[in-house]
Parts: sequence; structure tokens; C-alpha cells
Amino acid sequence: MSFLSKYHTVSQKRFPILTAELNMSHSNPEKYQSLPSLISDIKAGNRRALSKAISLAESSLDEDRNLTEQLLQSILPDTGKSKRIGITGSPGVGKSTFIETFGLACIEKGERVAVLAIDPSSQSHGGSILGDKVRMPVLARSEDAYIRPSPSRLTLGGVSNATREALLICEAAGFTTILIETVGVGQSEVEVRSMTDLFLLLTLPMAGDEVQGIKRGIMELADIIFINKSDGDLESFADMSKSQIQSALTLMHSPTEDWKVQAMTGSGLHGNGILELLQLCDDFFQISAPHHHAMAGRRNMQNQEWFELAFHRELILWAEKQESIKQAKIEALQYIANGITVPSMAARAIVKSHLHSD
Amino acid sequence: MSFLSKYHTVSQKRFPILTAELNMSHSNPEKYQSLPSLISDIKAGNRRALSKAISLAESSLDEDRNLTEQLLQSILPDTGKSKRIGITGSPGVGKSTFIETFGLACIEKGERVAVLAIDPSSQSHGGSILGDKVRMPVLARSEDAYIRPSPSRLTLGGVSNATREALLICEAAGFTTILIETVGVGQSEVEVRSMTDLFLLLTLPMAGDEVQGIKRGIMELADIIFINKSDGDLESFADMSKSQIQSALTLMHSPTEDWKVQAMTGSGLHGNGILELLQLCDDFFQISAPHHHAMAGRRNMQNQEWFELAFHRELILWAEKQESIKQAKIEALQYIANGITVPSMAARAIVKSHLHSD
Repeated sequence: MSFLSKYHTVSQKRFPILTAELNMSHSNPEKYQSLPSLISDIKAGNRRALSKAISLAESSLDEDRNLTEQLLQSILPDTGKSKRIGITGSPGVGKSTFIETFGLACIEKGERVAVLAIDPSSQSHGGSILGDKVRMPVLARSEDAYIRPSPSRLTLGGVSNATREALLICEAAGFTTILIETVGVGQSEVEVRSMTDLFLLLTLPMAGDEVQGIKRGIMELADIIFINKSDGDLESFADMSKSQIQSALTLMHSPTEDWKVQAMTGSGLHGNGILELLQLCDDFFQISAPHHHAMAGRRNMQNQEWFELAFHRELILWAEKQESIKQAKIEALQYIANGITVPSMAARAIVKSHLHSD
Repeated sequence: MSFLSKYHTVSQKRFPILTAELNMSHSNPEKYQSLPSLISDIKAGNRRALSKAISLAESSLDEDRNLTEQLLQSILPDTGKSKRIGITGSPGVGKSTFIETFGLACIEKGERVAVLAIDPSSQSHGGSILGDKVRMPVLARSEDAYIRPSPSRLTLGGVSNATREALLICEAAGFTTILIETVGVGQSEVEVRSMTDLFLLLTLPMAGDEVQGIKRGIMELADIIFINKSDGDLESFADMSKSQIQSALTLMHSPTEDWKVQAMTGSGLHGNGILELLQLCDDFFQISAPHHHAMAGRRNMQNQEWFELAFHRELILWAEKQESIKQAKIEALQYIANGITVPSMAARAIVKSHLHSD
């Protein structure tokens, strides 16, 4: 693919540059003393401001939440204008290579691309920063791309909440396509579906019955299924896979009003099928956009869902700060350990005695 | 297998009997006016009392929770003595047939077996009762077995909570082996692992690289991996699968102290390998039981986890009942729909203004 070839030299010398960049990003963590300057820098496209703001949104400290609140409130009018695309696929499906190629193709068409990730198993922060930049080295060097790793493990839906906020911040920073990637563990596909417009499932060319190996629950979330690695040895399976997936799709409902779910073949590594996929995504957004009602309706529903989850999270965070509740929980755990009470009943008793009803 | 053959005639005439039984179970829902009689009937092994008590535990009505609280408190000394075994495996792995055969083999050895299920996707109650009894018809007819379908979809971890309570009630009713089955959607394996002593993963004989198709996260939860359907056409793959899984296991930590995770082959349909599996389970419980510390420690940790989850659930249920919070949420949703506020911030504002801190 022509659009890939010109990036190859950049890719060769990526490591020293990358290291310098990482060191830099840690050099001055307290640069932003004032929120207004942080906000105006975000809007001006300053990457360090962007990273700083996302880190702020990932914090659960009270003062950081206060700042995040002001920040989000202030950028809100500049959000909501991007194409939000979720991407999932099992480990080994070639997600990083695909995202790099797909992201570069988007940039070729004039988009500015942010890549966010949700990985519920991600434990440490530093490790995955390096990981994400190394696995998409060419995209990471582009001025029109921004790659942000998954936040470190946060309790109580914190990862999902932080990613939703990061998405808004990226939109305010002028990114027009936001790719949200998930590793497909546990509920993470459902979470990514619930914060994106278009959901893309990557899969591999497969023989025979193995199409059944794609979990039906995941397939039902997808707007487009891209059969990656449809090249080399696997090419012979690709078309068979495609027709099998298409016939499986006839039994399912499309997750998006007025959109017929489609399967297509291609390769993130060699680039074939990527421009066609981009065209299909454009079709999706063109079909969806005029039906203003449908897309606005989906986003509003997503916001309601986010609100409910965030409310639960805030309730729990509040309870964790109350000394009297903390004490009662410690006592309850003693009773539980001694076999004197049932956990669910101890929990109920604490809520009954410590929270006052209307 | 000899222990299977004698059940075959029973299996032939199952449907009329089954229907009569189901009708009967709905005929007198209000039989238990008094909690003491319900409790003594449970302890006496009365199945209708058992079913009634589990239904009570599944209810989230305040008065039912009050009754459940008294019931659980009263049966608590009779709980904790069973072998709690979790069973998971992808759809198509032959779980129902396996559980039927395995359950009958347990009964042959003198156990009384209860089968509970966690299916987060289960929507309706009536449908799955029939489903569960039809898919394990012979086991369902045994006097030493009790099969309870997954509770209907309950919000906020309600399914998991209800299943934990059902487990205790089954123990009080004298069941000595509790099998908790999950369909393997989303987080349900993790939930089942967190309420059982031994976790059994069913998988299929596979060729070559497909062992990688077993999600690593699931494999790390398992104490024993049983390669089911190791018969007929698939038999040739069985041993290869076993050695591949075993070599994958060498790279993983055992979830249970002093226990080496093992893979074995067999067939739920034909019964081969089942008695060997039962022996292996006995080994597990014999190795674990003397180390009183390890097993007691696991159960205590599980109870702590249950307590935390139940506490979160009770907090949210409490908030849902407060009129002032309900009103504030309705207003917030208006603001969110109009693009005036960010969902996470609206949630935080409500908690801040409606809950009073220490």
C-alpha cells in the first residue's frame, strides 16, 4: 500500500526518539499551575497539556476530581464532534498492527486520530505507556496521532469512567477520530460498545465450524467485522470465513438502527482492505449522521448509562471515606470470620444503621 | 460405564413426570406462613421448602430480605460443610451431559448433590427451570440431587449474591457436594471461582495452536482441566491436547496452595474418565482439608469479598429508594441530555449534596 511505504524509514529509528520523548514527558509534571492555561493549551493542541488533563481525570483524589470537574465543564461545548470507533478482537488477532495501519489511513484522509485503550488487566502505568508506543511506533510518531495507554487498574469501573472522560478531552483537543481499543477480557467489550458510535470486531480467517468460536455475545455488538490477516497462508480461509460470518449475521439484529452489519477481509500488516474498510466506516457515519435522531439517541442513552455507573461509583467512594462506616465494616468482618453472620446480611445491617432514609 | 446404564430406563419416561412436578411446585406458593416451619422443613430435606427458601433469597423486596436474614442467620451453623465445586466451559463443550454423569457418580459414592447455575444472560425464570431439568433428566429425577436454575436477571450482582445464599441453604438442607455451573459469559467465571473451593474447567480436544484459544485468564482460575468429549472422532486429539495444556500449565501459578493443577481426558457422554476425575477431586479435598488453614483462609477471603460486593449493592439499593435522590437524578438526566453537564460530574454533585459526611 502506497500510504504505508513512506512511513517505513521513520519506523527504523524509532527507539532513541521514543526514549527521549518519554523522559521529557516526566520532566515537568507540575507545569500547569492554572486550570485556564491548561484548558487553553488543550484546545491549542498541546500534547503535554492533553496528557496532563487525562492524568487528572484518572486520579480519584478529591482535589483532582474538583479540577477535572471544572475542566470538563469548560471543554464540554468542544466535545461530541468526533467519530468514536471501538475496536476489539482476541489476543493474536493483530490488533496493534491493524490500528497502526488503520490510524495512518485515517490521517491520510485528513483526520486527527487519538487511540485510547481499555485493559482491565493492566496493572502498571509506566509499562503500558512504553508498550503502546512500541507496538504502534509509526502512528506514535505522527503529529496527527495521539496514543494513550489504558489507565492503570482502578477500582469500581474507574477505568471505564476515566476513558470516557479522556475521550471528551481528546475531542476538545481537536481529534476527529477516536479509536478505543479493548483486549476483550470480561466485560470490556460491552464497556467500549457503550462509549462508541461504531464498533469494529477483528477476527481471523477460520476453517469450518470455528466461526462458532466467536462469542455470539461479542458478534452482536459489532457494526463491522474485519477478518484480519487475510493474506499468505490464511488467505484461502478468508472468503470462506467471510461467507460463514455473513450467514451467521443474518440471524442477528444489527446493534445500529438502519445499518446492516457487514463482514470484510483484509490485512493490517499489508494494508489490503484498509481503504475499503475506511470507506465502509464513512458509509456508516453518513448513514447514521443524517438520521440525527438515531445517533443523538444512542449518545444520549450512553450518557444515561454512564451517569448511572458514575453515580454508583461515587456512592461507594463516599462510603469509603466515612469513619463510622469503616469502623462498622471492620467489626462486621470479625463477625463474618467467626462464622457469626452472613456477609450479605452484615452489609445490609450497616447500610440500614448508617444511612438515613428520606 | 456400569453406573450409568441403570439410569437409562428412568430417562425414557421423564417428560410426563417432569410436567406434573412443575405444576405441583406452583400450586401452593404460600404454604410457609411461619419461618420456623420453613427452616425445620429445609433441615429435614423437604425440597419444596428448599425451593421456597431459595426463591426468598432471590427476592429484593424489603420484607423478603428481612425473612431471608432471619433464615440465613438461623441455618448458619449448618452451613460450610459441603464440597463446593465450580464448573465452567464454553457453549458446546458438553457441560449438561458432563454434570449429569459427574453428579450421578458423586451420588454413587454417597454424596447428595445440588446443582446451581449462574447465567448472567438468563432473562426469564420459568423457561430455564424447564431447560435445566430437561438437560439433566436423569440427575433431576434422583432423590439425592437437587437442580436449581440460575436466578432470573437481577441487577447489581444480584445473581451472584442470590447464588451464594442458595449455596448456604443447600448446605443446610444436607447437600454434601454443591456444583455451581457457569456458562462463561463476562465475569461469571470469576464470580463462580470466588464462591467455590475447587474450580473445574471443561474444554474440548483440540489440534495444535488452538490450545491458545482457551483464555489464559480462565485457565489460571482452574484447579482441574477436564478435556471432555475425548471419544469417537476427537479421541485422537485428546492426548495431544492434554500434553499441550499441561505444558501451558507449567507457566502458570496454581490458584490453590499446595495443589498442582492437572489436565485429564474423558467423556461426560460415555462416562470414561469420570471416576478418575472423582478420585482427583477427592485428592484435592484431602490435600486441602488437612491444611485447614489454606481452605479456611480461602473461604474467609471469599466471604470478605462477598461482604464488599453486598455492601456496594445495598448502598445502591438504598439510594434507589430515596425520593430526594430520585428527583435529583431526573433533573441531572435533563441537564445531561441538553449537553449542559458531564455525566460523571452530575453523579458526583448528587452524592455530595445528598449524603452527609462524618
